[in-house]
Amino acid sequence: MALIVQKYGGTSVGDTDRIRHVAQRVKAQRDAGHQVVVVVSARSGVTNELISRAKQLNPAPDEREMDMLLAVGEQETIALTAIAMHAAGLPAVSRTGAQAGIITDAAHTRARILDVTGGDIKQQLDAGKVVIVAGFQGIAKNGQVTTLGRGGSDLSAIALAWALKADLCQIYTDVTGVFTADPRVVADARQIDVISYDEMLELASSGSKVMQARSVEFAQKYAVVFEVRSSFNDQPGTTVKNEAPNMEQVMVRGVAVDTNQAKVTINDVPDRPGVAAQLFQDLAQAGVVVDMIIQNIGSDGHADISCTVAKEDVPRAEATARKVIAKLGGRLLPTTDIAKVSAVGVGMRTHAGVAAIFFGALAESGVNILMITTSEIKISVAIDPSQAGVAARAVHSAFNLDRA
Amino acid sequence: MALIVQKYGGTSVGDTDRIRHVAQRVKAQRDAGHQVVVVVSARSGVTNELISRAKQLNPAPDEREMDMLLAVGEQETIALTAIAMHAAGLPAVSRTGAQAGIITDAAHTRARILDVTGGDIKQQLDAGKVVIVAGFQGIAKNGQVTTLGRGGSDLSAIALAWALKADLCQIYTDVTGVFTADPRVVADARQIDVISYDEMLELASSGSKVMQARSVEFAQKYAVVFEVRSSFNDQPGTTVKNEAPNMEQVMVRGVAVDTNQAKVTINDVPDRPGVAAQLFQDLAQAGVVVDMIIQNIGSDGHADISCTVAKEDVPRAEATARKVIAKLGGRLLPTTDIAKVSAVGVGMRTHAGVAAIFFGALAESGVNILMITTSEIKISVAIDPSQAGVAARAVHSAFNLDRA
Repeated sequence: MALIVQKYGGTSVGDTDRIRHVAQRVKAQRDAGHQVVVVVSARSGVTNELISRAKQLNPAPDEREMDMLLAVGEQETIALTAIAMHAAGLPAVSRTGAQAGIITDAAHTRARILDVTGGDIKQQLDAGKVVIVAGFQGIAKNGQVTTLGRGGSDLSAIALAWALKADLCQIYTDVTGVFTADPRVVADARQIDVISYDEMLELASSGSKVMQARSVEFAQKYAVVFEVRSSFNDQPGTTVKNEAPNMEQVMVRGVAVDTNQAKVTINDVPDRPGVAAQLFQDLAQAGVVVDMIIQNIGSDGHADISCTVAKEDVPRAEATARKVIAKLGGRLLPTTDIAKVSAVGVGMRTHAGVAAIFFGALAESGVNILMITTSEIKISVAIDPSQAGVAARAVHSAFNLDRA
Repeated sequence: MALIVQKYGGTSVGDTDRIRHVAQRVKAQRDAGHQVVVVVSARSGVTNELISRAKQLNPAPDEREMDMLLAVGEQETIALTAIAMHAAGLPAVSRTGAQAGIITDAAHTRARILDVTGGDIKQQLDAGKVVIVAGFQGIAKNGQVTTLGRGGSDLSAIALAWALKADLCQIYTDVTGVFTADPRVVADARQIDVISYDEMLELASSGSKVMQARSVEFAQKYAVVFEVRSSFNDQPGTTVKNEAPNMEQVMVRGVAVDTNQAKVTINDVPDRPGVAAQLFQDLAQAGVVVDMIIQNIGSDGHADISCTVAKEDVPRAEATARKVIAKLGGRLLPTTDIAKVSAVGVGMRTHAGVAAIFFGALAESGVNILMITTSEIKISVAIDPSQAGVAARAVHSAFNLDRA
């Protein structure tokens, strides 16, 4: 008998048929003798509908009241899921985030988990019940309802798996697992059986958004092994866990493409200490997350600085750059869209020649590299967006990711 | 400065425009220097939609889970109302039933209020906030969400008015107050300024459903004065309070018509002790509420027994009657619809001749009386439904209710 935590996202509980399907899936686990805790999201569409209603009343609704409002979505789903399980002959009981003891700070709409007590979940499981917990929500120490922000339900499930010492944590989603590349870009991408937290995080930060980084980080911090899999079939998914020595046999685990990037460039800034520091300090204060940076020093005592930012941050980045230019000099060039292609693998730590293979593959395919960054387990390049597909396929193939 | 509790029902918060309207109405009270607690229902339609969703999954959904589900409706409204108030420049904060300290027993879907602590409402009011409380819901001592059943939001408001020692409790609804008769039946019916709890209860039990009896009973038990008024205009409504000596100057306060009644008759039952007892005991056990009863003793040692029941109870009443007949003898006559017309007033306690005026008015209008019941402050007759309007108008006029 194992204790399993399963999380179902908004599309997996999107209507009454889907909710029935979840009940059947849980029943199969119970019939196999396991204890099951189910974490559910709001039905897909509900959260957006609530937000739209609030914005009709107030373009800048209070965050505390938004949490009170949005928590409604998951509370509806837990009750409906319990009701569906009863119809399937499964004893089940629902619990809000507060009742499940998901204790958070008071940062409304983006609360951080401080502790998970589990409430009476253990007793309910021991009494033979399936326990259905509202994801995404918690309770602050002052008794106020909070929500965890984007990807919050995944985080709820992983935190509960940790608190309950679950044997298995399954994140059911609309993809069958994590792939060596986006199959829409690289046709022969394959599903990955096992991936390390670090690789998962680097893939996420490089545009492969199966899960939010914070959930993976929480799992890594508390060593919660979890599996990403599909709620629409019974195939095994991708298991995410701590790095093991045998993982390093594979040089590159996956290739990621992020096309939501732009390159902001300032030319002719005076090349003296503190100029770059000023620019990036001001960008950070403006809340702009900078990814890649290059600086070329000209022979005339001036420098050109380029950095990549998310497309939605371009207006703020340009405004900040203009302020810095007004103080220090320089010239803002037109911002251009770029694509970021990354190869990720813990195997890079022990294998030499990864960069050579990566750049060689791009060169052979005629892809021009605009910027480069590397970390211990990742190499990324910024390239023209029109070449993103060609580049991803070339790199994927160069590292033999298309072969089993 | 007064402390006012206002309750708004589902139609009063039915869409974003209506919610804005509630915000403006509360603002007017605040601008006049008052502290305001607002109790709201679910938007009209939401509760039925949730019930329908649950029934799609399970024809007999668990009551505990139904409470978890239905509590969602009011939680949505409190958040949206707070958000609308902020847009109107009003500081406001929402509280669930649990946060407002509405403590109930664990009888899910029809919980009874055990205590009302008010939570931190007093502190919030003293800090200058409008407090918006979810009606209809509470929390059991085991931490489970409960709902109060039909008319629950009125009860929440009255219970909070009691707990907070409010100066005023206003029940906003879609009628402007309590009338001397249903204006759709009696065209010259007038709105009543002040009515006693007992009169309100007798009118409610006689078919004038402005409020559920339990809310009025709670108000009477704890001497909470409240006003029933319209959220669509600024006219004063009807104040409901303890009986005062001057109320007895009026002989009859109002006339009520209930057309949801049927008469079940058994003829030729043996006239011996215990027969009627058996019948009404069995009816009570079957959950049938009997209103009027008549028994005629024939000269042949047999009796005819008639009683009135709500139309929806007719199948159960007839089935019970058949069982009694199988044991004791007798004959079930065809059940007929009847209308019940009642005159209600605490003045009956001190005025003689009320019955004479009542029956005289009916006789003059050619209305045939089938059954009669009286209480200390009420006279009711069962008549043919086709004569209900004529009878109500005749009685209304005979007691001068059409005159100011």
